[in-house]
Amino acid sequence: MSIESLRRDVDAIQHTALAAVDPVLGVRRHVSREHDRLIVDGLSFVLPDYDRVFIVAAGKAAVPMTLATAEHLGDSLTCGVVVTKYGHGQTMDDQYSHHIDLFEAGHPVPDENSVRGAQAVADLARGATERDLVICLVSGGGSALLTLPVSGLSLDELQQLTDGLLRSGATINEMNTVRKHWSQIKGGNLARLAHPATVLTLILSDVVGDPLEVIASGPTVPDPTTVEDARAILARYGLDRGSGVFDHGANERSVQRAWDFVETPKPGDEVFERVHHVLIGSNRLAAAAAAAEAHQLGYNTLLLSTYVEGEAREVARVAAGLAKGVRVHGDPISPPACLIWGGETTVTVRGKGRGGRNQELALAAALALDGWPEVLLMALATDGTDGPTDAAGAIATGETVAQARTLGLDPLAALDSNDSYTFFDTLGDLIRTGPTGTNVNDLLFLLVGERAA
Amino acid sequence: MSIESLRRDVDAIQHTALAAVDPVLGVRRHVSREHDRLIVDGLSFVLPDYDRVFIVAAGKAAVPMTLATAEHLGDSLTCGVVVTKYGHGQTMDDQYSHHIDLFEAGHPVPDENSVRGAQAVADLARGATERDLVICLVSGGGSALLTLPVSGLSLDELQQLTDGLLRSGATINEMNTVRKHWSQIKGGNLARLAHPATVLTLILSDVVGDPLEVIASGPTVPDPTTVEDARAILARYGLDRGSGVFDHGANERSVQRAWDFVETPKPGDEVFERVHHVLIGSNRLAAAAAAAEAHQLGYNTLLLSTYVEGEAREVARVAAGLAKGVRVHGDPISPPACLIWGGETTVTVRGKGRGGRNQELALAAALALDGWPEVLLMALATDGTDGPTDAAGAIATGETVAQARTLGLDPLAALDSNDSYTFFDTLGDLIRTGPTGTNVNDLLFLLVGERAA
Repeated sequence: MSIESLRRDVDAIQHTALAAVDPVLGVRRHVSREHDRLIVDGLSFVLPDYDRVFIVAAGKAAVPMTLATAEHLGDSLTCGVVVTKYGHGQTMDDQYSHHIDLFEAGHPVPDENSVRGAQAVADLARGATERDLVICLVSGGGSALLTLPVSGLSLDELQQLTDGLLRSGATINEMNTVRKHWSQIKGGNLARLAHPATVLTLILSDVVGDPLEVIASGPTVPDPTTVEDARAILARYGLDRGSGVFDHGANERSVQRAWDFVETPKPGDEVFERVHHVLIGSNRLAAAAAAAEAHQLGYNTLLLSTYVEGEAREVARVAAGLAKGVRVHGDPISPPACLIWGGETTVTVRGKGRGGRNQELALAAALALDGWPEVLLMALATDGTDGPTDAAGAIATGETVAQARTLGLDPLAALDSNDSYTFFDTLGDLIRTGPTGTNVNDLLFLLVGERAA
Repeated sequence: MSIESLRRDVDAIQHTALAAVDPVLGVRRHVSREHDRLIVDGLSFVLPDYDRVFIVAAGKAAVPMTLATAEHLGDSLTCGVVVTKYGHGQTMDDQYSHHIDLFEAGHPVPDENSVRGAQAVADLARGATERDLVICLVSGGGSALLTLPVSGLSLDELQQLTDGLLRSGATINEMNTVRKHWSQIKGGNLARLAHPATVLTLILSDVVGDPLEVIASGPTVPDPTTVEDARAILARYGLDRGSGVFDHGANERSVQRAWDFVETPKPGDEVFERVHHVLIGSNRLAAAAAAAEAHQLGYNTLLLSTYVEGEAREVARVAAGLAKGVRVHGDPISPPACLIWGGETTVTVRGKGRGGRNQELALAAALALDGWPEVLLMALATDGTDGPTDAAGAIATGETVAQARTLGLDPLAALDSNDSYTFFDTLGDLIRTGPTGTNVNDLLFLLVGERAA
């Protein structure tokens, strides 16, 4: 089995994985129309029973999810609001322009358009009655795109408060807890606005492990965290009023507001009585599709986990260790083998190079696998954008380091300076899918060929 | 399945794993006596055919390997030299005191006793003829314990040269290449000394992947690296004569010697014609025994790899990700599950606490698994000594962080200050095996119980 055939196979595996989490296909797989009913998994919504049917969509996949849903609704769709990232609105179909308002807004840093879009979403939800159906379409990026601070807090102030908290070293979980309590939409607040309407939320997960309350900050999901939790976090990092942490821009009034918070609806709250959640796409769906394709191609295949996190270059060494086990001992499966995992790594940036977490993982793996025959690793960002680059990821093999040296590249120096993009671009081993329209975190494929006898 | 039953089971798994790589059992498994023959795997040595039979043993397991071998040799044993770490010589049997010379010496930093022991080993080997059998017993630590610099280089000078190279940032592979060319024993040089005697080397591997030329610096194994490689490494780090790097103690003469080097015997060299190598214990043997025990205990079991390396706290996050996959999706196997891997992690020390790589791994895993039910991880140094502590490793569960907070411990602060020993000691979750007499790197056991319905 040559490296070339491993390259061909991983390309097929990657395509199958991405196709499985296409947002349009995801909606179609879970939603169908039977006469006057909308069938969503086990649920049935009799459309004529509702006075009005609204769509509110937010996230990078908001447009395709809206189109696929509207297709099933036909004339039953009353109107909608779609908020997506700049550049992601182009594919919106003109036929909906008269009753769907499209907002393009800032991501990952929210801007005034995020607030305008979020306000339109909030207004639509608030106007819904118990005789209305509100279909929420949620995907990655929805949290920033639906930015609507609690009354009295401006976008600027929110941004400065958030930055201050980030600088203080708060964890992502702590950030999420605090942010939910500064928002009119996050943490179940959108469900409260829509109450007593029926709410159906379709979710494309971009968070490891698919915690519904975290994806897009869970706008229609009960929030287990409280105002007290949020205050304790501010206190933990010394962010009380007068602490000086918020000095850069946030004034006394906004800090007062931030400290006050607004409680989110809790599990068991009546606002969730008629709220339904359906996960239409996830990392595991993509990983499982990849595993099926690899199996089809003749590989012994194992889906290891879809919860892999850690510093990219260290995660790479574990991946390389797995490849070596396959190669030498047939652990955990014999070659030809395909090991698959999903998750999302992080990069502690030390250098000034270009790259992304998947490219950096591949570079570190290339170093760890240097000289190992018939081993190939692909690290892939499923949204097609790995870090601030135009690549989705990269491919490393046991030959990568030798090839790189032939081209005058220094793999160790490239890793030291976080310059994985330049490294793989020179080698021609970047994966360029373009924006995929979906986002279910990252995937890693590890192929070990059967050595010729 | 309670955490308590997971604890009981992992204890049984750990014991089985360590027993499998006991050096005495390892020798007994591979070596037997049939009348006048010593049978070693497929090899047969007719003892009366040899004028003399020598044992040269070096490493932390030198004494038990010697005892187990001498048991089979009986009166056929002529004499021997054993070099082991301070405190590891006590178990030597008095019946051999008249014909086996025992040296205890410095490890990991060699001292004058290392040189004395190594000189005795070299002298014995050099005196062997083609009618003699030299049995080499090699285990972890053998490299430092057999320190015999090339002629003209003193131990002090060697130490200063080595330190200078280490400080310059040379990799472990580069260090090994250089060190072999500064030694009269490493890199196949012991085989050259013993030539034309028959040489049988029994090896207990303490290096990930069991590369024979690396374990104890491969005293009887062909060295693929050359004097030119060694010089190129010195040049790469600017360690030429007059560079000033060796200024602290190493004088012009020693730098001249260091740069001269002495070539090691290469693959295909006639000195290896009658040299045989047998691996009697390895990480994979321990991992496989652990897997068999876990299977016996009713767990779905998978040996993932014995090549896992990386920064301990990041490797921990991958391990936690695997546990979560088992728990939620049954990836790669369903609970009750036991995942096993082996290898050796590293710790970049940032704080001033006490700990070891396995304890730090367990601490980081505890944070990543906080709140997850029925998950247990054990990280274990098979020599019983994890870092500069009296513990072999530690156990983390999904309850660890909560229990720690109850006791007033701060897990994040403990991780920040590399203080995993204090953390787990307070919790009572250290593993204390005492020195095990063996060393086959580290093992990781991940147990996920079946949640009660």
